[in-house]
Amino acid sequence: MKNVVSAVCVKCGAEYEATPNVTTCKKCGGILDIKYDYNYIKSQVSPSVMSDRRDNSMWRYKEFLPVEGTSKVPKLRVGWSPFYEEKRLAEQLGIAKLYVKDDGINPTGSLKDRASAMAVVKAEEAGRTTIACSSTGNAASSLAGNAAAAGYETFIFVPERAPKGKVAQLMMFGAHVISVKGSYEDTFRLSAEAIDRWGWYNRNAAINPYLMEGKKTVSLEIAEQLNWKMTDYVAISVGDGCTIGGVWKGFKDLYAAGFIDKLPKIISVQAEGCHPLNRAIEEGKDWYPMEENTLADSIAVGVPRNPDKALNAIRESKGLVINVSDEEILAAMRLLGRTCGVFAEPAGATGTAGVKKGIEKGMIPKDATIVSVVTGSGLKDVNNAIKAAGEPMAIEPDMDILLEAFKKGGILL
Amino acid sequence: MKNVVSAVCVKCGAEYEATPNVTTCKKCGGILDIKYDYNYIKSQVSPSVMSDRRDNSMWRYKEFLPVEGTSKVPKLRVGWSPFYEEKRLAEQLGIAKLYVKDDGINPTGSLKDRASAMAVVKAEEAGRTTIACSSTGNAASSLAGNAAAAGYETFIFVPERAPKGKVAQLMMFGAHVISVKGSYEDTFRLSAEAIDRWGWYNRNAAINPYLMEGKKTVSLEIAEQLNWKMTDYVAISVGDGCTIGGVWKGFKDLYAAGFIDKLPKIISVQAEGCHPLNRAIEEGKDWYPMEENTLADSIAVGVPRNPDKALNAIRESKGLVINVSDEEILAAMRLLGRTCGVFAEPAGATGTAGVKKGIEKGMIPKDATIVSVVTGSGLKDVNNAIKAAGEPMAIEPDMDILLEAFKKGGILL
Repeated sequence: MKNVVSAVCVKCGAEYEATPNVTTCKKCGGILDIKYDYNYIKSQVSPSVMSDRRDNSMWRYKEFLPVEGTSKVPKLRVGWSPFYEEKRLAEQLGIAKLYVKDDGINPTGSLKDRASAMAVVKAEEAGRTTIACSSTGNAASSLAGNAAAAGYETFIFVPERAPKGKVAQLMMFGAHVISVKGSYEDTFRLSAEAIDRWGWYNRNAAINPYLMEGKKTVSLEIAEQLNWKMTDYVAISVGDGCTIGGVWKGFKDLYAAGFIDKLPKIISVQAEGCHPLNRAIEEGKDWYPMEENTLADSIAVGVPRNPDKALNAIRESKGLVINVSDEEILAAMRLLGRTCGVFAEPAGATGTAGVKKGIEKGMIPKDATIVSVVTGSGLKDVNNAIKAAGEPMAIEPDMDILLEAFKKGGILL
Repeated sequence: MKNVVSAVCVKCGAEYEATPNVTTCKKCGGILDIKYDYNYIKSQVSPSVMSDRRDNSMWRYKEFLPVEGTSKVPKLRVGWSPFYEEKRLAEQLGIAKLYVKDDGINPTGSLKDRASAMAVVKAEEAGRTTIACSSTGNAASSLAGNAAAAGYETFIFVPERAPKGKVAQLMMFGAHVISVKGSYEDTFRLSAEAIDRWGWYNRNAAINPYLMEGKKTVSLEIAEQLNWKMTDYVAISVGDGCTIGGVWKGFKDLYAAGFIDKLPKIISVQAEGCHPLNRAIEEGKDWYPMEENTLADSIAVGVPRNPDKALNAIRESKGLVINVSDEEILAAMRLLGRTCGVFAEPAGATGTAGVKKGIEKGMIPKDATIVSVVTGSGLKDVNNAIKAAGEPMAIEPDMDILLEAFKKGGILL
């Protein structure tokens, strides 16, 4: 990999060779970060060359990705998700410009496909044929799907609260699924022990530094879809901390390579019922565990596995932290559906809930431009969608009964 | 529309001006078909010009579509869905080449988005702001999503058996939803009455000839993704008959314009529990109503609304009819998930179930090349996914318990 220099510990700065199966720092246990040679990248590709490419997937950014030139691109088409300017929603919220990046439109329905596609490539480079992870659901189903398409075996550990839709999806992809009676923390620990024992390729994003490199492609796409003119803010829901870390890494890479001339401020949105990272910023202290009390299961992470990169993303970008209630999340789901035609799962709508709240509270200025990332499809979690949207009117097939129902429902025609 | 000549009745041949709100034949009630000027199309675009386009949506085919040049393209990104060569699955089934077109990767998760995006454009051309339809689910949620994104109001009639995921989705998009206690036929009738009464734009695919023109874009994409070299067969699940009609229309248009030099045979796959159209072909007679007895809700249509175009697609292409059991549909869901990483709803996997059965029964020769279209995402119908895939192993977070569970599950490591 001519574009990659090394893997650097974010805590102690120790540098390691970027081998396919490198994990955490051997000295201090810190998480590693992939370091690039930006001069080399600049010598290989320019924004205009990039924009001329026909590959409508995350692999259009190969110069920015830590993969061998000889590695084959995995089969499922991940990335290059839709990017919409939402004029009516911007007007409704009273903000200059608002864009929605719909990452629910990925093969298994979430942003996590970006990391799992990367895991499949790195597992192959590492010579492994079995991949494992623990996950609240989306990382799991994305791993199961991307691995199945590539012919790999998977072992997946999920906490028992994972929504049925997500579990069904990964069972369908033929994963060996272990539903753990406990918290996400318990699930993570058991998966780590099993991965050690059997030498599986590790797709836990807080351990494997390459996965964040997959996730960062969402930012590369946002920048390109904005024609390399960045907005003031990018809002993202935060659980484990890996996704926000990846989002920030993507923008920093582009900035370092001269593809964009401005870095956005990152808005970290967490659930009121589970916001250990935002709390750390608010209190100006270290983070400490918190209860997992939110219906947004994908970000219900009381013990985040990637706090360092997440907190760094918020601090370094001079970003904002916003906590939203479950009610505000459900309202944002309705807003995205009714105004944008975008159906998000609760965690997927959490970023937008934060944008709304941030504007209302005056934390975000009215003349700002913002991208809100929708991280997962609403079809992943139908029960909460029903909670947000309500039930339809149910009637006999008769016009008089229909008229009556419209009248009762306040529908005047 | 310089590319469109007229709208022609498929039954009596009467021709009508292709106005935006044209519906069925005024003389005989037959369904209309949009007639193009292929010489004009040829003068405007060639296969190589088409393949150079950057628009990765169904609107890249504008010369083949019945829309005014001045109409604005709707916001949601519909079409240009992934197209995969499935080598391992082809090998497993014993066939020369097999491709899967995954139309579950559309904004609302099904092929119906293609028709609904078209409906939004034509409603605008017709000067309407309210659109209505009846649907077993996917047409409904696609209409709701595409209309919400464009700022239109929708009234949607669904039979009460429509899966919860689909109903939740369209409620989320802000549609007025009427759940009808009755069959699809009852639902269709009530919607037709209401559409007449209030003058809504009609998005019932069997009434509105433009919707099939939206659906046909799946075939335009397949041909282009095959580099304009068609396979021997294209397999598709069949309910109402509109989708198979659209699939065939797309290939015929391309053939007439000289973009492809061979037409594929269309494989019509229906459920054993509801196959009135395939029965008509098998018996060499007219179709007549059948019970709706299959778990594949999207194709459980006992009284198909578009029999003429469907039967014509099968006969004209010298195609095949194959009926599959619910068990075979569930098995095809597993096959697609485990071998291809594609998660399909039951009707979405029905085409592939038919391909498997057709090969096993010797109806499809071993040296054939086939495209199987997956028409909808498995996340639409989680209950049936669980039925197909089973439940995960559930354990306490403990290594010894894990070892025990693996042993019990026959997982040897």
